[in-house]
Amino acid sequence: MRKAGTEITLKRLAILGSTGSIGTSTLSIVEQFPERYGVATLAAGRNVDVAFEQAVRWRPRVVSLATEELASQLAARLKVAGVNGIEVVFGAAGTVACSTHPEVDFVVSAIVGVAGLEATHAAILAGKPIGLANKECMVAAGEILTAAACEHKVPILPIDSEHNAVHQCLRVGAHSEVKFIWLTASGGPFRRLPLEQFASITPEQALKHPTWVMGRRITIDSASMLNKGLEIIEACRLFDVSASQVRVTVHPQSTVHSLVEYVDGSILAQISVTDMRLPILYALAYPERPSSNLTFDLAALSHLDFEQPDFERFPCLRLAYEAAEKGGAHCIALNAADEVAVEAFLDRRILFTGIPRTIEAVLAATPEAHPDTIAGVLAADREARETARSVIAAAALRVHA
Amino acid sequence: MRKAGTEITLKRLAILGSTGSIGTSTLSIVEQFPERYGVATLAAGRNVDVAFEQAVRWRPRVVSLATEELASQLAARLKVAGVNGIEVVFGAAGTVACSTHPEVDFVVSAIVGVAGLEATHAAILAGKPIGLANKECMVAAGEILTAAACEHKVPILPIDSEHNAVHQCLRVGAHSEVKFIWLTASGGPFRRLPLEQFASITPEQALKHPTWVMGRRITIDSASMLNKGLEIIEACRLFDVSASQVRVTVHPQSTVHSLVEYVDGSILAQISVTDMRLPILYALAYPERPSSNLTFDLAALSHLDFEQPDFERFPCLRLAYEAAEKGGAHCIALNAADEVAVEAFLDRRILFTGIPRTIEAVLAATPEAHPDTIAGVLAADREARETARSVIAAAALRVHA
Repeated sequence: MRKAGTEITLKRLAILGSTGSIGTSTLSIVEQFPERYGVATLAAGRNVDVAFEQAVRWRPRVVSLATEELASQLAARLKVAGVNGIEVVFGAAGTVACSTHPEVDFVVSAIVGVAGLEATHAAILAGKPIGLANKECMVAAGEILTAAACEHKVPILPIDSEHNAVHQCLRVGAHSEVKFIWLTASGGPFRRLPLEQFASITPEQALKHPTWVMGRRITIDSASMLNKGLEIIEACRLFDVSASQVRVTVHPQSTVHSLVEYVDGSILAQISVTDMRLPILYALAYPERPSSNLTFDLAALSHLDFEQPDFERFPCLRLAYEAAEKGGAHCIALNAADEVAVEAFLDRRILFTGIPRTIEAVLAATPEAHPDTIAGVLAADREARETARSVIAAAALRVHA
Repeated sequence: MRKAGTEITLKRLAILGSTGSIGTSTLSIVEQFPERYGVATLAAGRNVDVAFEQAVRWRPRVVSLATEELASQLAARLKVAGVNGIEVVFGAAGTVACSTHPEVDFVVSAIVGVAGLEATHAAILAGKPIGLANKECMVAAGEILTAAACEHKVPILPIDSEHNAVHQCLRVGAHSEVKFIWLTASGGPFRRLPLEQFASITPEQALKHPTWVMGRRITIDSASMLNKGLEIIEACRLFDVSASQVRVTVHPQSTVHSLVEYVDGSILAQISVTDMRLPILYALAYPERPSSNLTFDLAALSHLDFEQPDFERFPCLRLAYEAAEKGGAHCIALNAADEVAVEAFLDRRILFTGIPRTIEAVLAATPEAHPDTIAGVLAADREARETARSVIAAAALRVHA
């Protein structure tokens, strides 16, 4: 806790995934708390327009884009605009340069998928505290990242709303006193859809999430509940608990963000608005809580509903528990196969029900292994993607045969 | 947190109010955790039979009863039963002897009303940690008790389920980061009763509480919501917040025991079974959480309802906020007037609606004062009771005139 009269130290951020939804929310927090947060580096992907605007507005030391060509475009536009002193880099090495820059005090890791993995790992090795919005990092390389974080005494603060809620609820007891972590799930748009209609779900239907506005993959993952599956694995790694200690309760209002049940019988729950700026602010400011306008109107609360998740409608949940039990390559395969399958579903190459089928086939083909390097994780990831593509191609052949 | 391999130290308890509902629940915790808790002293009231059984079972050093006559009866029965070595004492001095006995490590203060005040204060001065189930102590003498606790570095752990929940939720942030404390209220049996029927409520109806089985006064206080009013004042004193920071939300299931809203927008809630053994165990074991069988079945939870309290139906809430703002003698008067009024209601001398009317009249007749000694508090308490009795007698005269 900061003592009265103590100066607030400016935290300079690396924002990995700056043009995405978490990235822009992070920048809106920086805007709101200019005495607390500044921007040191920004890593974006292919959105040169937004990266240009952000660079002009925030004047970071370094900006990284996906390719050399995009980086050249950005550099040229900055020159035309008369903005000097910003280094423009690119690719995986560019993202690492952003995450490890000496002026960075805190890294917001929000690149979707395993693309953010190397930069997050490098940041931990460089001793930078992490705000983690990228759940795939923890799913694919959780043991490596947490071991490195432990060795380098680097805190990893979860930005996922559920894990952020768990992090808060875990402050009222000891680790050995935790009985269950209960992740809440909105249940997605198909919570009430009859099982037999799941095969005919269209990408348009699946992209409409009832409570959160998010990226495309995470929205589809919410509809299949694979997202909750990834969160189960993430919770195991972040909080050092077994898969059997992580449970899911469906809570359509997404008001209770998660709960922790202690061995004495007390359950702590965290409630707040469904706005990612709150967990971002929590992660940035921990252990402090700055005053914000992200107020939940408790006086207007009338009811909260809960129900048990349906493992028949949502086989991805079962697959995630299976992968969590096996760990290592199976968690990598779960995430990789899902990413490939979601892409295929959005391209209308497979049905919605083809997503769990693809994952199941890839998991079955995955040998038990526990890669202990980032290179090993990425190799297992590539292999699983290859297998997923074959599985999808074979299924398509069968459909057309 | 206790380290692995560390011995558990036996805590020897003074249980003030041992034959009441909190007292017997405390003894059932002692029974369940014999390696953690023992009984040093027991202070009871007029129930010689139960006090005798407890003395035989727990072999305390001292037992206190309300009067010399009752104490003699108990001593004689213990002699007949061949139970030696138990000192039997009586009255206010007897209760103090129990709470300050040198072998006492922890005092459970559970005597209803201001009768427990002197013994609780004496225990604090003797450096004994307190588990406080007696809310009247905090309402009548909160400033004195908390100042003494602060001076003697004595923790006061709340056993009231709401304040216990608040204590838990307060562990996830700093005091300066607390925006509101939200006390949940079951709303009592008359939450839906039309306003015009409140005058005809009988003692039998008011004694039926929907969720908690408790003593008679607290059950009537729940029906009038004066109980919640006392808790508002108790929260102000226990947690050093202003009355405007304490809010009430009606939650008929009594599943969420209370909530704390932080300035960043996060709200923490505590959920558990409606069983007083849980807050008792929490207070006894704090900061540890021993494993218990007091499990709340979160998987079976279907919904939680919340609504705003109705200040028209429950004028006692408004009166409590008024007393909380003025503090001192007004808080003493609120509690004293209510105790007298509830007795009169149970004796059918006044109507249910006469309870808030009596309190309002007593508050109006109370001068602003802030007694700074226990004797001053007790004098103000006696004076308010006198006034309450006059108010009730005058009302009866008017009815019969």
